[in-house]
Amino acid sequence: MVVKSQIKFIKSLQQKKYRNLHSMFVVEGVKTVNELLLSDLKVENVYTVDKDSIPFQSNYCQLVSTSDLQKMSGLKTPNKVLGAFRIPEPQPLDFKNWILVLDSVKDPGNLGTIIRLCDWFGIKQLACSTDTVDCYNPKVLQATMGSITRVNIVYTDIEELIATCNVPVFGAFMEGISIYSEQWPANGILVMGNEAHGISKTIEKFVARKIGIPQYGKSTTESLNVATATAIFLNEIRRS
Amino acid sequence: MVVKSQIKFIKSLQQKKYRNLHSMFVVEGVKTVNELLLSDLKVENVYTVDKDSIPFQSNYCQLVSTSDLQKMSGLKTPNKVLGAFRIPEPQPLDFKNWILVLDSVKDPGNLGTIIRLCDWFGIKQLACSTDTVDCYNPKVLQATMGSITRVNIVYTDIEELIATCNVPVFGAFMEGISIYSEQWPANGILVMGNEAHGISKTIEKFVARKIGIPQYGKSTTESLNVATATAIFLNEIRRS
Repeated sequence: MVVKSQIKFIKSLQQKKYRNLHSMFVVEGVKTVNELLLSDLKVENVYTVDKDSIPFQSNYCQLVSTSDLQKMSGLKTPNKVLGAFRIPEPQPLDFKNWILVLDSVKDPGNLGTIIRLCDWFGIKQLACSTDTVDCYNPKVLQATMGSITRVNIVYTDIEELIATCNVPVFGAFMEGISIYSEQWPANGILVMGNEAHGISKTIEKFVARKIGIPQYGKSTTESLNVATATAIFLNEIRRS
Repeated sequence: MVVKSQIKFIKSLQQKKYRNLHSMFVVEGVKTVNELLLSDLKVENVYTVDKDSIPFQSNYCQLVSTSDLQKMSGLKTPNKVLGAFRIPEPQPLDFKNWILVLDSVKDPGNLGTIIRLCDWFGIKQLACSTDTVDCYNPKVLQATMGSITRVNIVYTDIEELIATCNVPVFGAFMEGISIYSEQWPANGILVMGNEAHGISKTIEKFVARKIGIPQYGKSTTESLNVATATAIFLNEIRRS
């Protein structure tokens, strides 16, 4: 039995302001909750309609009715399990390794995919402009799978970060020089821009190397989606 | 003024069976409708609440009320314009050029992104298994932008296609040999598999070259999303 106030509290974590207020976020689904339970994240509560779906049972795991889970969930059709976790403290950035910087990425699916790509390609540091979508947004979490536990994500003033970083700064531009001709160092910063407007003017002036992905054959007005462009950039950095 | 039966007809094109029955599909939004009007696609009707949003006006363009557009639209908040177009006849596949084959890709956003990638990398032929999501699904069209007009998309028995193709067949596998060591020919077939299960057993036996994208550092259980993996494969084919 869950008390009403607890249901209301968990439901409130669907919203960014309450996530920040309480330094907590929720994930839903057997696979992801179990993966987060195995990570370094601190768990607060796990609610499930079926205790067998959580192999690591302990006192934080609570059996609830389908109707109560429905009330806590952000999904139309809730999965069997919902977990509430502490938002981890961001770690200081290490400029001796690569840092991916996002300048105002707005789409939750794109951010989730980008976090998953960082995990795959061993880019362990992601710095997001403060107007980038919140990485604990439920739609982001749905797209990251468990990758979010393996990437240090920092929301910060990226202009200040880049202006003072003292490492090579690369950025993705439609009209940049070919990504295939670039020599990638062992560390640096790569900036990816907003879905509609690319990298902002204030950030652009700090980008020493403007890089583009050559279009094959006749050019069109479309650009690549920011998540697929990031896939290609990280692949190029790591293949060299 | 649009008659009720016409509203009902346009609305029915949100469903695959009616799209196939009438060989027609709808797109929404000023940018995409205008781009499709400039393509080789045959337009049937354009409905708009604002004639100025369609620069190429003619007798197919009809002014409607916001309420009528709402009734025709598949969106919660309809855009200003909705266009109904003929589904083009698929062209015969040309084995002298690259063909991307999709084995049961289910997510509309992934298919849309993949079509956009094909367009970018000049892979002009896309063969989809018959259980791959319909490329005229509104959510696919939303993710392709205008790219769908520049790629020949064929729904077919991909097992028969691959069994009889007589060109090199490559496929994406988690445990495949490194994509970085591959020599890509000027033509061939690349198979990408389902989001959860990868390439099916029936197709796998025809794949001569099983290729994977190396994970950097410690390996995790996650795979890359099929759309981002496709981005990396097409980039590798075209960079060589």
